This record gives sequence, C-alpha cells and structure tokens, in this order.
Amino acid sequence: MKDDIKGYVTTKYFDLPEGEPFVLDSGVDLHGLRIAYETYGVLDEKKNNAVLICHALSMDAHAAGYHNGETKPGWWDDMIGPGKAFDTDHYFVICSNVIGGCKGSSGPSSINPKTGKPYALGFPIVTIRDMVNAQKRLIDFLGIKKLVTVCGGSMGGMQALQWAISYPDAVASCIPIATTHKHTAQNIAFDEVGRQAIMADPAWNGGDYYNGDHPSRGLAVARMVGHITYMSNHSMNEKFGRMLKKEKLGYEFTTEFEVEGYLRYRGDSFVKRFDANSYLYITKALDYFDLTQEGSLFDMFKKVKCRFLVIAFSSDWLYPPAESQEIVKALKMNGRDVTYCEISSDYGHDAFLVEFKEETKLVKHFVNRTFKDMEDKNGQ
Amino acid sequence: MKDDIKGYVTTKYFDLPEGEPFVLDSGVDLHGLRIAYETYGVLDEKKNNAVLICHALSMDAHAAGYHNGETKPGWWDDMIGPGKAFDTDHYFVICSNVIGGCKGSSGPSSINPKTGKPYALGFPIVTIRDMVNAQKRLIDFLGIKKLVTVCGGSMGGMQALQWAISYPDAVASCIPIATTHKHTAQNIAFDEVGRQAIMADPAWNGGDYYNGDHPSRGLAVARMVGHITYMSNHSMNEKFGRMLKKEKLGYEFTTEFEVEGYLRYRGDSFVKRFDANSYLYITKALDYFDLTQEGSLFDMFKKVKCRFLVIAFSSDWLYPPAESQEIVKALKMNGRDVTYCEISSDYGHDAFLVEFKEETKLVKHFVNRTFKDMEDKNGQ
Repeated sequence: MKDDIKGYVTTKYFDLPEGEPFVLDSGVDLHGLRIAYETYGVLDEKKNNAVLICHALSMDAHAAGYHNGETKPGWWDDMIGPGKAFDTDHYFVICSNVIGGCKGSSGPSSINPKTGKPYALGFPIVTIRDMVNAQKRLIDFLGIKKLVTVCGGSMGGMQALQWAISYPDAVASCIPIATTHKHTAQNIAFDEVGRQAIMADPAWNGGDYYNGDHPSRGLAVARMVGHITYMSNHSMNEKFGRMLKKEKLGYEFTTEFEVEGYLRYRGDSFVKRFDANSYLYITKALDYFDLTQEGSLFDMFKKVKCRFLVIAFSSDWLYPPAESQEIVKALKMNGRDVTYCEISSDYGHDAFLVEFKEETKLVKHFVNRTFKDMEDKNGQ
Repeated sequence: MKDDIKGYVTTKYFDLPEGEPFVLDSGVDLHGLRIAYETYGVLDEKKNNAVLICHALSMDAHAAGYHNGETKPGWWDDMIGPGKAFDTDHYFVICSNVIGGCKGSSGPSSINPKTGKPYALGFPIVTIRDMVNAQKRLIDFLGIKKLVTVCGGSMGGMQALQWAISYPDAVASCIPIATTHKHTAQNIAFDEVGRQAIMADPAWNGGDYYNGDHPSRGLAVARMVGHITYMSNHSMNEKFGRMLKKEKLGYEFTTEFEVEGYLRYRGDSFVKRFDANSYLYITKALDYFDLTQEGSLFDMFKKVKCRFLVIAFSSDWLYPPAESQEIVKALKMNGRDVTYCEISSDYGHDAFLVEFKEETKLVKHFVNRTFKDMEDKNGQ
C-alpha cells in the first residue's frame, strides 16, 4: 500500500506523448491528454499481476490508502490492501481518474493548451468507451499486456464491461458490480434533472465560471437527486423515517426532517470537492452508454474472451438486478464463463460501497483463480 | 355538467364570513379564507346526493366540464359527468381548490388583507387536515350534512382519509386512490429536492417575487423531479426508451433524448400555470402528512364510520400498493367495511389519471350502493 517512503500513497500523472493523437467517439482529437492514477502493491517482473479498478461518477483515482495529511482513506479501501479482496501483497492494483472528471485527468476544468484557459464547455463530450481507451493508454504505458481483472461498481462496472468488449485480449476477467449495459429512460431523466439544476444556476454562466462563483446551489441539488437514487426506500426509512431534527414540527420552511438535513449536507459537501461541469460531462457519458447501440447484447458479447463475475444488489433500483441478469444471459448465450451473484442488501445502489464483506468473499477467490489460470497457461 | 346557460362550467368562490375564525394546525388564524370550487350536477332537495372530489398537488377545482373558451376539459373529466363513474345525472359533484394553492383558494399568491400585498412566505404553513377543514366549511355553507362519498387520488386520497377521520358523521364512504397514510423519507427527500431547486433560483428572492420575474427555472426542475416519480420505469421505457430527438447522438449539451425533451416540456408548461410558492406550501403539507402522528393507524381508524374502497396501482412506486394495504389492514382490524382493489397497470402513480375505465367499474357500483344504503337508512 505504501508507495512512498513515508507510507502514504500519492497520485501520479501520465501525459500522452506530445503529438500522439487521442481520437474520441465524437471524432474530436483530444490533445495533451493527462491521466491521474494511483497504484497499490508491486508490479511483478512479468507485469502479469495487474488489476484495474474503475471508479463511479463522483469518485477518483484515490481508491485506497491514505494521502499525506489526510485521515480518510481512498473510496474502496475496504476492498484494496494487504489481505483484502484485491490483495496488494499479490497484486498490483491501478485506479485512474476518468477523463471528463475533475481529479487530475483531463476534463472541463483542465487548461486548454490552445487558449491557456480552462476548457469549460469547450471540452469535448466523452463516452464510457473514451474513458476506457484512455485507461488502455495508461496500461500500455505501464507495460502491462493483460490485466488479471478489471473491476468496478456503477459507472465503474460499465467501464469494466467496455474493457471486455474493446480489449478482449487485454483482460483475463471482468467484475461488473451494480451496473447496467445501458442507461434507461429513467436513468437519463434523473441525470437530466441534475444537469438542468446546474444549468439553471446563474453562476453556471454557460459553463464559464472558473474565475468567479461556482454554481454550487445547482450542483448541490443535482447531488441530492443522485443520492435519493443511490439509497433504497427501505434504507431511507430505516435511517431517517420521519425523524425530526427538532422536537416537533415548526411550521416553517427550514430543514425539519432528518432526511432533509442529510441530503443538504451531502449536497453541500459535494460542491466542495466536485466540479459542476464535470458532473455534466460524466452524467452525459453515462446517458450515452448503451452496449446495444451497434447490435444486440448477444452480438456485442461475441467478442469477449474473459470470464465474468457479475454482482448485483437486491434493493438497487438505479441499476436493478434484472439488468445484470440480462448481461449474464447474453454472456451465457455466447457460452462464456459467467458467475452471477445477487447480494441481498437493503442499502440500494450504495450497497457496492457498503457490502464489502460479501463482495470480498466473492471477489477474492475469483481473482485468485483467474491469476492461477493465467500462470498455468503461461507456464505451459 | 352545464352549470350556466351557455353550457360551460365556471369556478365559484366561497368566502368565510368576516370575523369567523379559521385556526390552522399551526395555531395561526387564517383571516379572510376564500375557497374556489366548482360543482357539476344538481343538489337534490334533501341535499343528500353530494360527492366531494379532492385534487392532487398540481390540480385545482376545475375537475370536469369546459371553461368558456377552453378546449381542454377539467382534470378528471373522464370520471365525472353524465353516465360516468361520478354520474352527474344522479350526483352533485363538488371539487374545491386546496388552501395553499394558486387557483383561487387562499394561498401564498393571495393578497394579505393586512398588507394589501401577496402573502408570499407570510402565508401560514397549512396541512392536509387544514385543507379538509376548509372543505368542511364549504360543505357546511352548501347545507350538506353528509357526503355520499369523498374521493381523491394521491394527495386527494390523503384528504379523503383525513375526512373519514376528522368528520366521521359527514361521510358515508371514502375512496382513497393511489395514496398513503404518511409520507416516507423518500417522499420527503424528493419534495425537498424540488423545494431546494425553487429556493436556489435567485428569482425566488425569499418568496417575494410577485412584482418581478418568477423562479421559473427552479420550479421547472422541481416539476421534472416530480414527473419522474409519477411514471414507472416501465412506462418511461415504453414511451421513450433511448429514443433520440435527432437521427444520432450530437455530442453536445442539448436536449438529445426524447425523455429529456418530454421532461423539459412538462417543466416549462407547468411554470405557466403554477405558482412556485404554492409548490413549496403544498409539498410541505404532503411531507407533514402522517396519520400515525398521534397514535397507531389502528387507533386512528377507530373513529371512522364509513365504508372504504381503497384502490392502488401495481407499478406506483411513489405510493406503492403495500402502503394502501397497510391502510386496508388497519381498517379491517377495526372491523370496518373495506374493499381493496389493486389495478394492474404500467403507468406508475399517474395511473390514477389514466386508468379511468378500470376505476369507473369499481367506483360506480360502490357509489351507487352507498347512496342506496343512505336512502334506505333515511327511509327507515
């Protein structure tokens, strides 16, 4: 876990060599691509033990360990570390910030080399496939030919699926968690509400706000909408119910219910760490995601070669288990090696961040078995 | 249906006699209460054939028939009229705008007699019980002792339930449709997002906007959130799926998906007919609604005397059938006469406005039977 002498992890940066093109799905060539990433554990000599973790909407490259001076570890520290599901005593774990994001990889808040100012809406629209193509450049740069596994929850799961399709020879296994193969109308609708809330904030100013006030109120509302979709009705009732912040109803427009206070807190804390334009770009990438755009799911999975562990959560209503089951079915129809596990949980979509004990039981053996099979094959 | 000689229906107004107090749940006395209402059909001599229809969040007193010069009938015209579920050849149907609203009844956009200016946030917070108490004054004014039935969908259903509890001797039957006995944490959360979207709009100006621009963008976002909760995931996929407005993805931040266009349209058209402050007040009334506030549902229903027809819709995830079943159970435990019907529908919460054919089959007989029993009882 310790990647510097002080015992802390640090974020590293990979810049695409000058002049090297990076053509996006939109056809735009994104010059000067930068990818922020972190690694945990040691890459073996054969560069054979690498695992790629893909993050969800609001996360970043800091998946595990501690940054110098911080008391909170990375977002999936429960899963990544010595002896954990992704065991850094054995594996070299990589996590990179998605392009379009705001945590070090190229995105709308990055400086446009052509203008010397932040891209803002001048940044091109990116897709999940673009994010994966960027990760592939990073993996190439690190000299890794084949990943033991590519794993992620939510949007991370979409990237994992895209990896298996785009680079079938570069992944030995794939673990999509709490995800879907395409955004539904309801998914798009919720994202559009969030985008409209941001764009309705006058501080948004057509995306050009980096020199002034940021559209914090709009972004907070967008985040509040998101949070409702991440929790289950059940978990909200268990956690908050109709509990009041004060002793009784105040008959005024203040934050009266605990659930209101929670949402406002989550909204307000989000705006301190996230860029509103990145929220627009990443939700757009999510909405564009549709593996069936160019054919049936069955046809798309003809190309894949790796084995799969598909995990869904019973109370996830953002990407319900039925959508994972469609993925499993299409893979099975192609005769692929697939294991499907539906974890019974009341935590809704958030379960992929919470139910790490159950996930560990499933993931650890799957990764070890995949690695052993890779070694056996190489030893032949 | 025709209540004037030209064949059109008109909205009427009832003003509480000057000096007559109207004390709200908050303890505030709302002076000068006005109630906008419409009636369809003829009140019989014994004033024995009256039916009260209660409306949902965004509706008003105009439930049926046509206003002069308009081509669209009232919001439940499918259910109210000659030969329809609420047969105006036999019944005198009343619908009044809720207090706190913006369609003629006292609300935040009404003129505060003390200041000569709109109340804005000076209007007191109202509850579902306050709305019902206001309706009772109207019914008293019309000289009606007992309603054949009180019926409503969504927030209208809450009012119907409250009627049965608050005025057990004034209702012979109650038809709560697609409703609940209390707002859950998730219900409150969605409403709070809507309120925050409105309050985040600088035009809202602390509620004081009647002399200038209205907070249209904030209100539109609030309405968009609402609409998502009114539809089912299934109906959204059936109606829109991932259909695009243009031939292909444009890689830009415009309205690209049909579902986005629909939501924006619904949001934009709503702001033309609804007051943002009323949206705050009415959602607050919804969030305050909790029949179990003063005891168990079983205890609350000890007071009721009427018969019930409880209707829920299979795909309603705003007020799921399970919540109607709780109401039915608590009534049954009190030995009350209850019929429960779950209508299989893909339309989500909106089904109560759409599935009028199924509703008619259930409602018509129930109302007629209730009326016959009332007559029999009176004839004894």
